[in-house]
Amino acid sequence: MSLTGSILEGNRLALARLLTQAENDSLEGRAALAELFQHTGKAHLIGVTGAPGTGKSSLVNQLALYYRKNADKKIAIVAVDPSSPFTGGAVLGDRVRMRDLSGDNSVFIRSMASRGSLGGIARKTASLVQIFDAAGYEIIIIETVGAGQSEVDVARLAHTTIVVEAPGLGDEIQAIKAGILEIADILVINKADRPGVENTERALRSTLELAHPTKRVVRHHGQSMSVSAPPTDSPMWIPSVIKTVATEGKGIDELAASIAKHVEYLQKSGDWEARDRARLGSEMEILLREALMDRFRENILPQKYDEMIENVINRNISPYEAVASLLNGKQT
Amino acid sequence: MSLTGSILEGNRLALARLLTQAENDSLEGRAALAELFQHTGKAHLIGVTGAPGTGKSSLVNQLALYYRKNADKKIAIVAVDPSSPFTGGAVLGDRVRMRDLSGDNSVFIRSMASRGSLGGIARKTASLVQIFDAAGYEIIIIETVGAGQSEVDVARLAHTTIVVEAPGLGDEIQAIKAGILEIADILVINKADRPGVENTERALRSTLELAHPTKRVVRHHGQSMSVSAPPTDSPMWIPSVIKTVATEGKGIDELAASIAKHVEYLQKSGDWEARDRARLGSEMEILLREALMDRFRENILPQKYDEMIENVINRNISPYEAVASLLNGKQT
Repeated sequence: MSLTGSILEGNRLALARLLTQAENDSLEGRAALAELFQHTGKAHLIGVTGAPGTGKSSLVNQLALYYRKNADKKIAIVAVDPSSPFTGGAVLGDRVRMRDLSGDNSVFIRSMASRGSLGGIARKTASLVQIFDAAGYEIIIIETVGAGQSEVDVARLAHTTIVVEAPGLGDEIQAIKAGILEIADILVINKADRPGVENTERALRSTLELAHPTKRVVRHHGQSMSVSAPPTDSPMWIPSVIKTVATEGKGIDELAASIAKHVEYLQKSGDWEARDRARLGSEMEILLREALMDRFRENILPQKYDEMIENVINRNISPYEAVASLLNGKQT
Repeated sequence: MSLTGSILEGNRLALARLLTQAENDSLEGRAALAELFQHTGKAHLIGVTGAPGTGKSSLVNQLALYYRKNADKKIAIVAVDPSSPFTGGAVLGDRVRMRDLSGDNSVFIRSMASRGSLGGIARKTASLVQIFDAAGYEIIIIETVGAGQSEVDVARLAHTTIVVEAPGLGDEIQAIKAGILEIADILVINKADRPGVENTERALRSTLELAHPTKRVVRHHGQSMSVSAPPTDSPMWIPSVIKTVATEGKGIDELAASIAKHVEYLQKSGDWEARDRARLGSEMEILLREALMDRFRENILPQKYDEMIENVINRNISPYEAVASLLNGKQT
């Protein structure tokens, strides 16, 4: 049977193989992705982001366990993990997770090192998500380890974005400055048994109120060429604030209830489709940028490019001028 | 006098105006940047990165104060700050800084909101740094607020990259997983008066040893078209570990000494030039990607693009196939 056929039939080994191919961006992987694409569009994508130390991984594990116990759904976890090549963080992370979720054939956990070119993280995350979607995983949790712009960009392209905070992680301003509150559909204060939880909650709630949350607008990744606004008569979603102690499983049922409520909102408001549309538009744009660059590379003499860089390094010409000259001199 | 002329003469108002234009990517800003570029290449660029809560801003302030007291140098701070549009984090951050450094005409602090397209952060940071460089700022500190991949990418394109850690910020694994240790030329353990500093130091040192640090290789941002390897007979730089309590000014002199030693190493080894080369190559590639996308946008009918997205959303065609079709069908 073909690789894609095996995946559609639920073969985990075939699935693992294609995930690796997609991460390595192999030609075979690309072909399989194209074949599988028609089977996508069914999964609920949940993005989870937040600063290191908030206990995101424990929370995601508990959420997966909860879904396994209370709903017969296949769950995939994609952990976008900027681990170092030498520390093997991804492997360690997987092992820690395995203790709770191992042996469950309806759960698939995949860590993805986020090293790579600009746009590479987002593109590869999108590929992995598509593969899981086609393979029949009904809930796909995208967990980002960092708290930077690119991680936030990845997480916010999900249907439901969960931002995790914790008390006592430095100043509350840090969290607010990180600019991630406004992308939250659900705000989780994890480690809620720690001192300072009231302060954290107060700070978060007042920031949310300050923001006068109006209807959430689906944003594109980067400059978009075509964004569809959600219907204007749609109901409004006000981000909920949930307190959890993930290590003890506390508050997970409330979190799951809030997620269910958000799914309902997404479907009623038309936001589900709007977000799908934004995500796919964003993915296409990333692919387009890569393809344009690839074509440029194929059509230019490396010497010409190196010459131009040399001119820039010697300050004979500015980078802007160099790029303009490369593009005008060459019919690509 | 022209805007660039005023800037070269040290006019702060003209400088502030051009910084804003560069951030907004105005045509006038681009023209001025091209004019100023020949005057760049003199400044020492110091990148400072680390997770939220490590006290990076205090450290950067103290370092700037130290340089002002002990060396007659002009100092610029570029804070890459993914602040939310509604919380005004950038403004708040500037005010906090101003208390220490206000009234000093040889210090210029600029916060830059990092929202924007892929590559936008890196490109705008590069522009701001070039303007300060041309304006005669001899030390330019690039401080990133987040701890994500794009922030790390920005910081590591400096001549000297400082990674800031602090005791008790969750598990040490978090810092290691963040994959930023390996880019550090200098590792700072700030808040070193806190409990747990010995554990943090031990963990960091053993990770550094695990890494068997060989000669640092200058990496390009993204897939590079041309990377110059540093000379193979160059001396080796082993990252130093410095403990500081920035709020009390402790350890700042040691940090400054380590930075001075690193500058010496950079000049002797040829790494200074290699990093300049890598940075400019990376900048050119980002500009090239933007320019290629701009040209594509200009040459395609918006309806055609929207049609293709519609086909993707309806799962008639995969994103890869859609992009291939757009590129083949159109001579751009």
